[in-house]
Amino acid sequence: MRHNRGDVLVRAHQLVSRYGLGALTMRRLGAELGVQPSAIYHHFANKQTLLAAVAEEILRQGSRARTCERDDWTGRLREVCSELRDAMLACTDGADVVATVWAFGMGAQAPAAELEDVLRDAGLDDGLALVGSRTLLHYVFGHAFEEQTAIQAVAAGAVERDLASLPDFWTGLDVVIDGLRARLP
Amino acid sequence: MRHNRGDVLVRAHQLVSRYGLGALTMRRLGAELGVQPSAIYHHFANKQTLLAAVAEEILRQGSRARTCERDDWTGRLREVCSELRDAMLACTDGADVVATVWAFGMGAQAPAAELEDVLRDAGLDDGLALVGSRTLLHYVFGHAFEEQTAIQAVAAGAVERDLASLPDFWTGLDVVIDGLRARLP
Repeated sequence: MRHNRGDVLVRAHQLVSRYGLGALTMRRLGAELGVQPSAIYHHFANKQTLLAAVAEEILRQGSRARTCERDDWTGRLREVCSELRDAMLACTDGADVVATVWAFGMGAQAPAAELEDVLRDAGLDDGLALVGSRTLLHYVFGHAFEEQTAIQAVAAGAVERDLASLPDFWTGLDVVIDGLRARLP
Repeated sequence: MRHNRGDVLVRAHQLVSRYGLGALTMRRLGAELGVQPSAIYHHFANKQTLLAAVAEEILRQGSRARTCERDDWTGRLREVCSELRDAMLACTDGADVVATVWAFGMGAQAPAAELEDVLRDAGLDDGLALVGSRTLLHYVFGHAFEEQTAIQAVAAGAVERDLASLPDFWTGLDVVIDGLRARLP
């Protein structure tokens, strides 16, 4: 049976979402699609390219309309960070997938670009807007990775921990935003 | 041949350091030690317990003497965060290992506890000191995960990316610290 690129991507995203990042191998994906692994390379040159497409799909499925006014820069930052966080938490190992692809420089660049735009609109120069965007992302990735790792491990019965400390995402985000505010001209 | 817990841990740390987190399986560790995997369970009840011990070993090997005065709270925060970052970067997949174990709530708690102490000494109340410590850690984990993922992938020839943006660790850390400073009474 022939599959187009979109079919392969849908199945790859399903594999990750149901079984986690470790389940995403060319071999297993081929078996799911009823094709040889080599057929997948027709659509995705390598594992990294496939992973990048899965990360973009995670972000696409989590995308939301913007509601904040253009001059409400802190609201806009929160909107982007919250959307990113929720998109990652909606897919098993989503934080790992998106943070990895972003680190590869192969995709998932939209949140970084949007945060940079907001920070430039707020008045930061290009250099600080870049570092500020990256700092926000590092915080969001770090928080989401902890939250997702903890929730998944507890759900699997692999570890026992109190999950009560996790709902501090917004407080921590405001700490970072206040540090950026202190750098406005 | 009989091995004590320390022997097993040394070999487990070596496996991760040389080949990455994916290489750490009870099966492979048993083969390295020349014992059945079941012999390892005599020292470590499960994979998570073993991973927690490896994370502690990563922190132990990276530990440094403190040099900042007690009232230099920003210097003390930088010292803890820098030590943690360097310790993780010194071991293949070290950021992943330490962040995962911390998320499990099974170890690698010392940096969090020390950051909390420093923030309390600086004047934050207990609740804010806890969130502040966690926010610093989320930032450090997020930055180190990106840096290590990028460097390892580029070194392996798996991806091509410009590594020039990575040396912004200190600027981002100071953004977070300034956000905490704004919360001092």
